[in-house]
Amino acid sequence: MTVACTATPAVDAAAAPRGGPLPRSDFIRQLVQVLRAEDGWGAWEDLADADLLAEYVVTAEERRDLPITGDPEPELVWRLEQFYAAVGLLVGRRTGCAASPMSRIHWEGFGRVVLIAGRLVVLSHHLRDVHRFGFASFDALAAEGERLTAEATAMIEAHRELARAA
Amino acid sequence: MTVACTATPAVDAAAAPRGGPLPRSDFIRQLVQVLRAEDGWGAWEDLADADLLAEYVVTAEERRDLPITGDPEPELVWRLEQFYAAVGLLVGRRTGCAASPMSRIHWEGFGRVVLIAGRLVVLSHHLRDVHRFGFASFDALAAEGERLTAEATAMIEAHRELARAA
Repeated sequence: MTVACTATPAVDAAAAPRGGPLPRSDFIRQLVQVLRAEDGWGAWEDLADADLLAEYVVTAEERRDLPITGDPEPELVWRLEQFYAAVGLLVGRRTGCAASPMSRIHWEGFGRVVLIAGRLVVLSHHLRDVHRFGFASFDALAAEGERLTAEATAMIEAHRELARAA
Repeated sequence: MTVACTATPAVDAAAAPRGGPLPRSDFIRQLVQVLRAEDGWGAWEDLADADLLAEYVVTAEERRDLPITGDPEPELVWRLEQFYAAVGLLVGRRTGCAASPMSRIHWEGFGRVVLIAGRLVVLSHHLRDVHRFGFASFDALAAEGERLTAEATAMIEAHRELARAA
C-alpha cells in the first residue's frame, strides 16, 4: 500500500491503539457477538474484541488510498453485512421485533441494504463506495451503529402493527 | 433427462404446445417485457413470446425428475428473480408505487424474496425447492403472477403513505 504523505509522524500512529479505545456501547457488544457467532472453529478465540473489530477502522488517509476499481473483497462485503445484522439484532433487543437484513451489492461497489421487521422496512440504505466502508475510529463505529438502531427503533414504534405482521 | 413413464402418449405431448396456449394477461405481457429488456444483444429477437417463456413451464413429471441436490442453476435463479421483478413492475403500473425485488437465495435451494415499495414490504415469500421453480402451464404462470400482484396491490392500498415514504 502506498502510504499518503501526512503531517502525523509514524511514531504517534504506533503509540495510539488503532481506532482508539473501545467504547462501552451496546452496539459494539452486539457487533462483537455477531462476529464471534461466525467463529465456528474458534479461530478467533484468542483475539481481543478490539482486534476482532480492527478491520472496521479505516482512517481518512487509508480511505484516500483505497482503490474503488475492482470488485469489493468478499470479506469487506461480509463485514458490511455483519454491521447491519448487528443493528437488526440490537433493534430486536430494544423493541421485541428483530429486523433482518437483506442486501443487494453490485460488484462495482454500490447497492442497497434494508432491515425488515414483519412488513416494515425499518431501515433503507443506498450504498456507494462500498470499497471504502469503514469508520474513522471505534467511537465513530459505535455512534453510527447506535444512530441507525435509534432510527430503526423509532420506525418500529411508529408502525408497531406492521412490524409484527407476517 | 430421464423421462418418467406416464400414461400420456408422446404424440399428444408433441401436438399440444408446451405450456398450453399463451393467455392474454397483463402479467404475461409484463414478464415478456422484463425478459426482452435483458436482451441487450438482440439474441432473442426472433423468439416468439411462448419460446421466451418456455423455461417457466415445468410439468408435474418434470418436477419429480428434477434433482434438488447441487446448486440451483444461475439461469433458474435469474428466471425466478425476473418473475418477481415483473410482479413488482405490474404493481407499479396499477398503483403508481413500483415495488422493487430483493432476494437472498441460499445455494441449497431455499431463501427469501421480498418486494419493497417505499418503507413497505408489499410481498414476502420464503422459498424452498428453488430447484423446482416453475409452473404447470402458461395459465398457471399467469394466474400466480396475477395473484401475487393483487396481494401486493392490496397491501399498498392499505398502507399508501408508507409505500410512498422514502
